[in-house]
Amino acid sequence: MALIVQKFGGSSVRDYERIMNVARIVGKTYADGNDVAVVVSAQGDTTDDLLEKAAQITQHPNARELDVLLSTGEQISMALLSMALGEMGYPAISLTGWQAGFETNRSYGRARIKNLNTERLQSELDKRRIVIVAGFQGINVNDDITTLGRGGSDTSAVAIAAALNADKCQIYTDVDGIYTADPRIVANAQKLDIISFDEMLELATLGAQVLQNRSVELAKKYGVELEVLSSLDPVKGTIVREVVDMKEGMLIKGVTKDEKVAVITILDVPDVPGISFKVFSLVAQAKVNVDIILQATGRGGNKDIIFTVPAARAEEVCTLLRENLSRFGGREVEYSTDVAKVSVVGAGMQSHSGVASRMFEALYEANINIQMVATSEIKISVIVKKDEADRAVQVVHAAYEEMNGH
Amino acid sequence: MALIVQKFGGSSVRDYERIMNVARIVGKTYADGNDVAVVVSAQGDTTDDLLEKAAQITQHPNARELDVLLSTGEQISMALLSMALGEMGYPAISLTGWQAGFETNRSYGRARIKNLNTERLQSELDKRRIVIVAGFQGINVNDDITTLGRGGSDTSAVAIAAALNADKCQIYTDVDGIYTADPRIVANAQKLDIISFDEMLELATLGAQVLQNRSVELAKKYGVELEVLSSLDPVKGTIVREVVDMKEGMLIKGVTKDEKVAVITILDVPDVPGISFKVFSLVAQAKVNVDIILQATGRGGNKDIIFTVPAARAEEVCTLLRENLSRFGGREVEYSTDVAKVSVVGAGMQSHSGVASRMFEALYEANINIQMVATSEIKISVIVKKDEADRAVQVVHAAYEEMNGH
Repeated sequence: MALIVQKFGGSSVRDYERIMNVARIVGKTYADGNDVAVVVSAQGDTTDDLLEKAAQITQHPNARELDVLLSTGEQISMALLSMALGEMGYPAISLTGWQAGFETNRSYGRARIKNLNTERLQSELDKRRIVIVAGFQGINVNDDITTLGRGGSDTSAVAIAAALNADKCQIYTDVDGIYTADPRIVANAQKLDIISFDEMLELATLGAQVLQNRSVELAKKYGVELEVLSSLDPVKGTIVREVVDMKEGMLIKGVTKDEKVAVITILDVPDVPGISFKVFSLVAQAKVNVDIILQATGRGGNKDIIFTVPAARAEEVCTLLRENLSRFGGREVEYSTDVAKVSVVGAGMQSHSGVASRMFEALYEANINIQMVATSEIKISVIVKKDEADRAVQVVHAAYEEMNGH
Repeated sequence: MALIVQKFGGSSVRDYERIMNVARIVGKTYADGNDVAVVVSAQGDTTDDLLEKAAQITQHPNARELDVLLSTGEQISMALLSMALGEMGYPAISLTGWQAGFETNRSYGRARIKNLNTERLQSELDKRRIVIVAGFQGINVNDDITTLGRGGSDTSAVAIAAALNADKCQIYTDVDGIYTADPRIVANAQKLDIISFDEMLELATLGAQVLQNRSVELAKKYGVELEVLSSLDPVKGTIVREVVDMKEGMLIKGVTKDEKVAVITILDVPDVPGISFKVFSLVAQAKVNVDIILQATGRGGNKDIIFTVPAARAEEVCTLLRENLSRFGGREVEYSTDVAKVSVVGAGMQSHSGVASRMFEALYEANINIQMVATSEIKISVIVKKDEADRAVQVVHAAYEEMNGH
């Protein structure tokens, strides 16, 4: 008998039919002799509806009260799923975040789990009950309700799997796994059987539709093997785990595109020590994540500092830099959102010297200009013009398919 | 500086406009220098919508899970009201039933409050915060969520007022007080300035639209003075309290009609001791409340036992009695729901011998037949045919208006 954690997202429980479908999946797992802990998200549009109610009242809702409001969504889902299982004859019990022992820090809206007190969870499982836990939520040290932020239910599921040392952690969603590229862009994108935690983290823009990075980080930390699979289509999904032997398996795991990126350029900065430190400590204070950084050494002792930030923060970062321009002596700050980041991800790329050059070759043949490049052990990212991004994904994917021997 | 408890029902918080209206009432009370604890119900149709979701899944929802589901309604209301107060610049904080310290027994769906741990409530009030509490809910000894049943939010408000020794407990609703009769039946029904707890309890069918009996019983027990008033119309409401001096004030407090009643008749029961005991202990075991009982002594040593029960239980009680007819030897059991109970309520009636006779006279003059009569210290009830009930209310109300000198 195994202990299996199953997580179902909002679209998987969005209405009566979907809830009954989920109850059948959970019930079958239980009937097969397993202990089952289930994590559910809020139904379909519930969270948006609640946000809309709040937005009517105020544009700046109190963060504590917003968490009180939003946490009702998962509570509704869990009660309904528990009733559905009861109707099918299974013993089920639902637990809110605080009942399930999720203790978090005080950061409303993006709380971090500090501790999971599994006493109640374990005691219900010991009674051979199916335990249904509200994802996305916990309580802080004041007994106030907190929520874990976007994708928080995945994190809840991984935390339970880690704390209870579960045999499996299944993330049910509305796609049936992780693909080598977005099938809407690359028609022959393939589903991966297996992917490592690190690769999954680098595949953020593909994975974000399915798995939030925080949950993958947590799974990696505690060695929780994840399976991403569809609640509607009963086929094998994609396993995410610490991959030890990389000799077999595909070299390139995926090609991704991120259009929510902006390139910021600080022109004609004096080429003296400490400038980069001043620039990026300022950006860090604004809590903006910087991705690719490029310093073009330059003309007459000056250089340009070029880097990427999330598109939504570009305006703000530009303003901040312009206000402080005297501190690092640049001439002007510019930004462009007419760009996209295209990345290839796969462990072992570094030891295969041909990987980067094959990407550059494919882009050159397609006459796509590369504005910036960044590499890590398992990723190569390039910045291209936004309207060339889809084509870039297609030609790069085709090139690596060839390399991988498909 | 006074401590004021204010309770707002579902219609008072049903949408954005109503929530802002409630926030203005609460904010003004606070700005006037008072400490304010607020109890809210679920918004408008929320509870019905949640029940509908459950009904889609099962006709027999698990009682525990139903409470988990329904308790989200009040949680949504309290968060929204707290945001609205925050938007207006008031310091407010919302507390669920368990956060507010409502400890109940284990009876899901109709839990009784066992203890109110006011530590958190008091600490928030001490910080000069407006505390908004989810009505209708608590937790049991297992930390499971319970709900208090119909009208539970009134009970929550009274419990808080009692525990914190509040100066006032205001029950805001969509009518502006307690009337001497249903204004839809009696056009010139008058609003009462004051009514005693006992009278209020007897006026159940009038009051149920406004105040649930359990909350009135609790208020009487702890001497919590209630004020029933409108959240939409800022006029003086009706005070409910332990009335000491009855000399002043109106003799008759109200005329009510209850159509949800059935008359059950057991025909030709032997006139020997112990029969009534057997009949009514049987009915009591089925947890059915019997109201008026009448024994018509009779023909040839037999008698009829006639009594009233809630209409919804009549069929069930009849079946039960028929199955056990041999135990008390009756000939047949019949019931009728084509009846209504019309009552006049007012303390001091017993000492005014003319009250009952004036009622009988008015009904006689209107040619309305009285099927049964029951009297208590502060109430006279008669059973009449259902289609004559409204007319009975009108003529009785008119007669007492005359007596009361209006």
